[in-house]
Amino acid sequence: MISVEEARARILAGLSPTPAEIVALAEAWHRVTSAPVLARLTQPPADVSAMDGYALRAADGSLGATLRVIGAAPAGHPFDGAVGPGEAVRLFTGSVVPLGADAILLQEDATRDADSVRVNEAVTQGRHIRRAGQDFAAGDEVVPAGRQLTARDIGLAAAANHPWLAVHRRPRVGVLATGDEIAMPGEPIPPGGIVSSNSHALAALARAAGAEPTVLPVAKDTQEAVAAVADAVAGMDMLVTTGGASVGDHDLVIQSLQSRGLELDFWQIAMRPGKPLLFGRFGADRNRVPVLGLPGNPVSAMVCAILFLLPALSRLSGLPAAPPATTTALAGRELAANDHRADHLRATLRTDADGRLVASPFPVQDSAMLRRLALADGLILRPPHAPAVPAGAEVTIIRLAALGL
Amino acid sequence: MISVEEARARILAGLSPTPAEIVALAEAWHRVTSAPVLARLTQPPADVSAMDGYALRAADGSLGATLRVIGAAPAGHPFDGAVGPGEAVRLFTGSVVPLGADAILLQEDATRDADSVRVNEAVTQGRHIRRAGQDFAAGDEVVPAGRQLTARDIGLAAAANHPWLAVHRRPRVGVLATGDEIAMPGEPIPPGGIVSSNSHALAALARAAGAEPTVLPVAKDTQEAVAAVADAVAGMDMLVTTGGASVGDHDLVIQSLQSRGLELDFWQIAMRPGKPLLFGRFGADRNRVPVLGLPGNPVSAMVCAILFLLPALSRLSGLPAAPPATTTALAGRELAANDHRADHLRATLRTDADGRLVASPFPVQDSAMLRRLALADGLILRPPHAPAVPAGAEVTIIRLAALGL
Repeated sequence: MISVEEARARILAGLSPTPAEIVALAEAWHRVTSAPVLARLTQPPADVSAMDGYALRAADGSLGATLRVIGAAPAGHPFDGAVGPGEAVRLFTGSVVPLGADAILLQEDATRDADSVRVNEAVTQGRHIRRAGQDFAAGDEVVPAGRQLTARDIGLAAAANHPWLAVHRRPRVGVLATGDEIAMPGEPIPPGGIVSSNSHALAALARAAGAEPTVLPVAKDTQEAVAAVADAVAGMDMLVTTGGASVGDHDLVIQSLQSRGLELDFWQIAMRPGKPLLFGRFGADRNRVPVLGLPGNPVSAMVCAILFLLPALSRLSGLPAAPPATTTALAGRELAANDHRADHLRATLRTDADGRLVASPFPVQDSAMLRRLALADGLILRPPHAPAVPAGAEVTIIRLAALGL
Repeated sequence: MISVEEARARILAGLSPTPAEIVALAEAWHRVTSAPVLARLTQPPADVSAMDGYALRAADGSLGATLRVIGAAPAGHPFDGAVGPGEAVRLFTGSVVPLGADAILLQEDATRDADSVRVNEAVTQGRHIRRAGQDFAAGDEVVPAGRQLTARDIGLAAAANHPWLAVHRRPRVGVLATGDEIAMPGEPIPPGGIVSSNSHALAALARAAGAEPTVLPVAKDTQEAVAAVADAVAGMDMLVTTGGASVGDHDLVIQSLQSRGLELDFWQIAMRPGKPLLFGRFGADRNRVPVLGLPGNPVSAMVCAILFLLPALSRLSGLPAAPPATTTALAGRELAANDHRADHLRATLRTDADGRLVASPFPVQDSAMLRRLALADGLILRPPHAPAVPAGAEVTIIRLAALGL
């Protein structure tokens, strides 16, 4: 058996980011940049007013002075001439400061009377003027490569005059459930059968991670059936399977993919839930596809997906492939000493009277209880051989609701 | 001027969740349920084995006993007969426990020899058997109404046999930028003009919040132009505008929409950035559309969108319309006393040596600096009249990267 950390490192070592594609700016939210975004213009392009008011020469703007208003410059309609001594031009927020002017008289500090304006508060040279390039200059990197674009980044890329952005193609992930007992929701359920839940949960997780999931037809428990479905994933970036429980997790998948050139990296991990895990690569020479084989048990499948599939999808997406983000909380009750397998306790979270996060594990941690998994707010991480801790001790947790998990 | 809280309450009071639609399970991730999801079956449907092994009568399972294997029951292929005294049936994880059996002999505790199996570890009645309905029973509410579906919820709804789910329709949000100076990215920029960034940032924010944004054509600075574009939003759930800066934020929008029956709720808020804010309702009797008028300044627009538009979209989506989630951090430097306007300082976040979050505001908080906004990790909330605090004092922050903002 190998550790969670070693398994994750081995999986990530074999993966690289997808190539780039060009998407319209309006479609780029949450995509990952494949190249830096460089500003195509300078912002502001010229010195502009930060307020509504009047442009004038600072020397003319002493208290009580009266200036002649020689024009107006609404944003988008710059004043064509220059501001001379004793003159002022009406400006608005964002208006280009006309030639000759070096100060702004605020609207609320001015009294307008037909063609003249009176200074009720002395101006300060340069004040309320945003200098050309204050936000960014043409050629500046405004968004780095490898960034998952936020709404703010989209606004910034727009301001930098980019109608298109280069991003990593969404990783294409095939999701394959196997098992004679599996029916899709709403379809006739065979005797002793159950409804497929793993493929839908995993597809949703892949979507949450920015990937493009393809739910493959359920493969019956024969090598031929599994191999045939696996043939359909050539060109995908990853195949994720959940095990044919009827003949022992993964045995069927391994045997089937061996007929398609499977190189098997490992398949036992010191963790709970989810001990059996498969990683490898199969398919023809130029189309080898990484395969991650998750347990068939729904809770194990989801926990393994959080620990291994999410970082894998991050790497494929062009993001840093870090372990899932953790935070600390106080144990809501005493936790027993752990054995040699890293444990992941499903827990509810609450905030106590002092504002501290408290994680209380469900008393029963049966790995088939999907409803309880859905109710959990987090996983308490218990490393191998962790000693028993009393209620109130600090523990490390993964928050599940983040990113829609 | 009214407070941020009062403004938010007034906006929310006028909004209600969108009606329901039916979506395929595979499309339901991150959507908000409009009705509870009730289990359509019992899970497990019968008593099933939690492990690979053999089903037998507990009375027969003492150490050293040898039993006759009368059949096998792979998952999906239940054993048709009953287990009598001295008999065992081969089982796998998820297999239905056959009639007559009440104990499981684990595979690793058994020695198989042709048609017989030897007990190497005494069994315990009921152990390793998952009882019918342990996860949920038919009719149980497995997902409540008003829940934004996680990947785990999708798995649970699938297991409960739902191929379709009833969810609130995505709120339809029109985004209208006004201004003679505004060009779309990549298009010719008029003299003194700037590239539209607000509409793209706001559309991305709406998308992040699960809404369906429509970016409307930029309206020139005339009442007719704005009113004509506004006519196009009949049937939408909200119109969001960003102000025509050239004639004073919002004046143009207000005048234009007055010709379309605008009822104006308010338009001045004690906050920074973003003092001018408009909320109202306009349009013909049966098609009145709420309108939220944000400042034209990109940073102000985004901060106001986070404070007001996000909760509004939550309410429209069927989620609780809470203020944006806050957390606490330590001030990275001294903060001056605040005036009467709630302030929202753009800040970077880091974790100090003791694992505490530290929020350091940028020294310049100019509300036109979009690049700095994009670099910010959070907003430090400074309530009206907040006293000066030293570096290291606890402050309240909104984390911006959450939800792709």
